[in-house]
Amino acid sequence: MKRVLLKISYDGTNYCGWQVQPNGKAVQETLQDALEEMLKERVNLTGCSRTDAGVHAREFYCHFDCSESIPTAAFVPGLNRLLPDDIAVLTATDVAPDFHARYSAKGKKYTYVIDNGVVADPLISRYALHIKTPLDTEKMNLLCSALVGTHDFKSFSSSKRTVTDTFRTISECGVEKKDNLVLLSVTGNGFLYNMVRIIVGTAIDASNGKLNEKDLEGLFELPRDEIGMTVPAKGLFLEKVLY
Amino acid sequence: MKRVLLKISYDGTNYCGWQVQPNGKAVQETLQDALEEMLKERVNLTGCSRTDAGVHAREFYCHFDCSESIPTAAFVPGLNRLLPDDIAVLTATDVAPDFHARYSAKGKKYTYVIDNGVVADPLISRYALHIKTPLDTEKMNLLCSALVGTHDFKSFSSSKRTVTDTFRTISECGVEKKDNLVLLSVTGNGFLYNMVRIIVGTAIDASNGKLNEKDLEGLFELPRDEIGMTVPAKGLFLEKVLY
Repeated sequence: MKRVLLKISYDGTNYCGWQVQPNGKAVQETLQDALEEMLKERVNLTGCSRTDAGVHAREFYCHFDCSESIPTAAFVPGLNRLLPDDIAVLTATDVAPDFHARYSAKGKKYTYVIDNGVVADPLISRYALHIKTPLDTEKMNLLCSALVGTHDFKSFSSSKRTVTDTFRTISECGVEKKDNLVLLSVTGNGFLYNMVRIIVGTAIDASNGKLNEKDLEGLFELPRDEIGMTVPAKGLFLEKVLY
Repeated sequence: MKRVLLKISYDGTNYCGWQVQPNGKAVQETLQDALEEMLKERVNLTGCSRTDAGVHAREFYCHFDCSESIPTAAFVPGLNRLLPDDIAVLTATDVAPDFHARYSAKGKKYTYVIDNGVVADPLISRYALHIKTPLDTEKMNLLCSALVGTHDFKSFSSSKRTVTDTFRTISECGVEKKDNLVLLSVTGNGFLYNMVRIIVGTAIDASNGKLNEKDLEGLFELPRDEIGMTVPAKGLFLEKVLY
């Protein structure tokens, strides 16, 4: 037996997320089907995180255990031949039997893409939220800076969350403008359900002046309904997983 | 009456091209439907060119005549509210009654996107042709240079072409590499049916050594089956229209 770690990438538009769900097709399921065809047995795939329906991944990791019959390097071309165009296996490597795609991860980096042009660009509408009003990246960066550190992010998560410890550590958070795009990046040791999407909604509120400097001081005491909306999944990319 | 010129952009994936066709939905038709809803009358839309099914446009122009009832600037937000996410109206301007989206155009620039990474990137698979073998951009540029000038491009067009004059003038043609992408750009006064896609296929043949320097000398005498294949539409973008 060996443990194999796959680094994959996917366009989440047509999926209900990583994890198998009652409704819709999951990335996990699609990859498991391809693996089953190669290995002639069903394996259990463990992902580095759940991603919401519609979220994309430039980099996502998952591991599985299997016999030595197939050389690890062969999983890359083998699986890519079987997978649809919107999922790709980038690398396959042997890892120690106690390596765990989720628990060994030290952190993750997400990026959210906002199309801030006057007219929504149809060539990126699949991968960006369109906001017509010019965003104030300086005000957004004030909000981002306030998030850095270890805080109780309870208000920054969906009430559907299943965890009880709502403290998380954000190591980097910032916004940059590239032509018509406004990109928010955030790196942390873990994220609550919908947390990144609520952070982006709150940064938009900061830009619009709905959240002022005084609010920023007491940010983590504000109730859920006084911070930003959960922005759509389509602009969100899991960018990097840190091991 | 006034003549209005629209500058639009679209993701061609779900369309049978610009022009109304017996099968599939055309960009022209979708835009005409939106215009009809605004103007309460059917107008005739004239495009700057036909684009093949699946081809994208960062910039495409079309004109129509209508009464003065709606201010020209109002067509931008008005149409964008009615159009699907994959088509956008960028600008609307009044033009002289003898201005013609197609006949007034002096030239066009197209770009073709090749994903030359070892594994196809699922986040651009909608907008790029994947070629795994590393491309030789130097050899591709030799082919591109040979195309510049006025030549008989008969072999570089589909036999389905309807025109008899197959001479066209290419003013610029070149390839550049950006990370894993190889981009071929070509500017000319006009293009035959499938011409850009056959140019790209031929540049790929030049890279692979299927077409050598001697072939380049007699390039325009080669029969259709000795030059490149017609590459898929999804990597092709109408980039600019010159008036």
